Amino acid sequence: MENFETINGGICAAKGFKASGLYCGIKHGLPDGNESPISNKKNDIAMIFADVECNAAGVYTSNKVKGAPIVVTKKNLAKSGGKARAVIVNSGNANTCNADGEEKALEMCRLTAEALNIPAEQVIVASTGVIGLTLPIEPIKYAVPLLAEKLSYEGNTEAATAIMTTDTVKKEYAVKFVAGGKECHLGGMAKGSGMIHPNMATTLNFITTDCAVSPEMLQKALSEIVKITYNCLSVDGDQSTNDTCMLIASGLAGNTEITTENDDFQIFKNALYQVMKNLTIMLAKDGEGATKLITCVCSSAPDLDTAIIVAKSVIRSPLFKCAMFGEDANWGRILCAVGYAEADFDINKVDVDIASRSGKLAVCRNGAGVDFSEEKAEEILKEDEIEILIGLNSGEVSATAWGCDLTYDYVKINGDYRS
Amino acid sequence: MENFETINGGICAAKGFKASGLYCGIKHGLPDGNESPISNKKNDIAMIFADVECNAAGVYTSNKVKGAPIVVTKKNLAKSGGKARAVIVNSGNANTCNADGEEKALEMCRLTAEALNIPAEQVIVASTGVIGLTLPIEPIKYAVPLLAEKLSYEGNTEAATAIMTTDTVKKEYAVKFVAGGKECHLGGMAKGSGMIHPNMATTLNFITTDCAVSPEMLQKALSEIVKITYNCLSVDGDQSTNDTCMLIASGLAGNTEITTENDDFQIFKNALYQVMKNLTIMLAKDGEGATKLITCVCSSAPDLDTAIIVAKSVIRSPLFKCAMFGEDANWGRILCAVGYAEADFDINKVDVDIASRSGKLAVCRNGAGVDFSEEKAEEILKEDEIEILIGLNSGEVSATAWGCDLTYDYVKINGDYRS
Repeated sequence: MENFETINGGICAAKGFKASGLYCGIKHGLPDGNESPISNKKNDIAMIFADVECNAAGVYTSNKVKGAPIVVTKKNLAKSGGKARAVIVNSGNANTCNADGEEKALEMCRLTAEALNIPAEQVIVASTGVIGLTLPIEPIKYAVPLLAEKLSYEGNTEAATAIMTTDTVKKEYAVKFVAGGKECHLGGMAKGSGMIHPNMATTLNFITTDCAVSPEMLQKALSEIVKITYNCLSVDGDQSTNDTCMLIASGLAGNTEITTENDDFQIFKNALYQVMKNLTIMLAKDGEGATKLITCVCSSAPDLDTAIIVAKSVIRSPLFKCAMFGEDANWGRILCAVGYAEADFDINKVDVDIASRSGKLAVCRNGAGVDFSEEKAEEILKEDEIEILIGLNSGEVSATAWGCDLTYDYVKINGDYRS
Repeated sequence: MENFETINGGICAAKGFKASGLYCGIKHGLPDGNESPISNKKNDIAMIFADVECNAAGVYTSNKVKGAPIVVTKKNLAKSGGKARAVIVNSGNANTCNADGEEKALEMCRLTAEALNIPAEQVIVASTGVIGLTLPIEPIKYAVPLLAEKLSYEGNTEAATAIMTTDTVKKEYAVKFVAGGKECHLGGMAKGSGMIHPNMATTLNFITTDCAVSPEMLQKALSEIVKITYNCLSVDGDQSTNDTCMLIASGLAGNTEITTENDDFQIFKNALYQVMKNLTIMLAKDGEGATKLITCVCSSAPDLDTAIIVAKSVIRSPLFKCAMFGEDANWGRILCAVGYAEADFDINKVDVDIASRSGKLAVCRNGAGVDFSEEKAEEILKEDEIEILIGLNSGEVSATAWGCDLTYDYVKINGDYRS
């Protein structure tokens, strides 16, 4: 499976993708006339531009409340036959639940199309931030021509920074691999640290590749991999209104286009999994207020859905998350969360182990507690990356879910997000 | 509907019920020989004893991990044909996920039956506390004869105190009403402040009445009222393994037994609703770390299930709960939680108001934000009892869900529960 290599470059790692990002004052107003246009304030708007027309696939939030940018992006891709050339994305305002939301999202596309001289329906638009505040269009009018001017094959980090909201670190990951005898590249950027929950698409994620893949196969790969990566991530159990995961393929690697589930498709999916899994781990680690990355592996499940449901149920439990923050080997809470997972298996066969780089410890066998050393448990749980291993002993399938502990700082950050 | 009057007496308000409670050291060991048997430590074991054989109905957790006491209680009631005389209940240890759990629960019943000279299958047993620790039987052996000795028609508060775990206040409520021309009484006690979640039975709840009701009608009333009270309560979204709600009827009021859905049945259900609703509100107010009681009323829904699902979705959202703690009118989070509720309605018709004793404010109409005064919102949200009013504008049905804010103290309490 190790037919890929981690590389730098994020969304610019693949051939044919330029990017840029800058601060335009979506939340705090336009930069002062006397300031340099590129303020030292955090970037809040980004652009991606492909040298050629790309195939595009997307997965979106399942929330009934959908951000206007999602509505517009879907319409655009329907009109363009799944082709895209550019992405425009802002942070600081979600452009959701506003009467003029679609109008503003369309205007973002129009401005971008004009600056790049492409059809507006080939623009993917996304927004993230506060819900229900009117999106100010002036900063965007100001920014778009500058973004177009600044586009560069090294602009990935500028762009990755621009989509951050309460994120404390930018999230980028890229790999190279060989498909059809050609070197291909696939890289992505992501944002999100709260309001991340299983069963929605994801937070904002953009992935680019130069591997030639047909629209159908692109969508298929994305949907499959989202299910076992972003959809297995939970920070707080809330589902955002704006979550979007876009995958865009330029085809510039020169490989024979992947149009069936052949070997190249498996290789491509594996590369996509590596990038999305690593972005998922970055999102979990940077969960709002998180001090620990928690990975829950559910193995020996009868099927994939059961494994996913159980692993997510544990990762999502607030009581379990608090126990992890408190470094307390309260395995009863783990078993409790396994027990209320809505799936069919025999609770009396369930094993639980806790693990970290400090070792591994059995805490439950056949649904009942076993004696264990509290000192060893403490040693394991004081690490900042914890693994919870659930064995259902009812089959052969495994799944992994990622999350974090629940801390004072989560409450602090979210008690005062708007201001 | 006001055919009832609130009275004192909790589980001893109804004719024929004695209760007692004491400290026996379930968690911290037997009281020292030199201490008085009734230590000044918090009571941790309680007994209820009925003068006559009672009809009993129960609702239990839907968690696959079920506490041994639940398994034993169900078996007992099956054997006794739904008849019960006594309840024995401890806090400090859930007697769950232990290899010898059933054995210990059976022993609790046996000891109680012996002390009260009744059949063991007429004993209801319950435990609450840490999961996965072996239940020490010595303190219980010590306590049961003393509890039997101490039984009194005024013992309700001793018992209500004994079932508390992280609860900061005892929870009791009782009403009197007239059914079949006779004065009847119905009262209950409850415990719970974390791990309370919709779709499970409840936390530990015991309700007694002297109203004569057939076993079938008793179960019917309990199931209906649990659905719209305890099951509409969420503190943290976790579902406990030990949740039990028992309703026991002595029939000593002398009314004609309620055996059909007649007027008396409606009156009885209303009394039960009053008691269970008020206990639910007490549980929500005492949510772990809570500083605010949050009530969410979903109205104009097409059906009851939709109304319940939407109201619970809001009450459960961690982001919304943090916003309430921060007194932030972040209505976007409310609409977001409405949007991910798994029910069928038109999000574009949804209205949201926030309210408290300081007034009422429209924040969202037809799924979009409306201008509102931030000062007014602040004034409303700084109160300690907040109402969130959701109008679906898609029907005639309403439901209420209860919860609390998410605070630093929730994290603190649950980061270190076992010790």
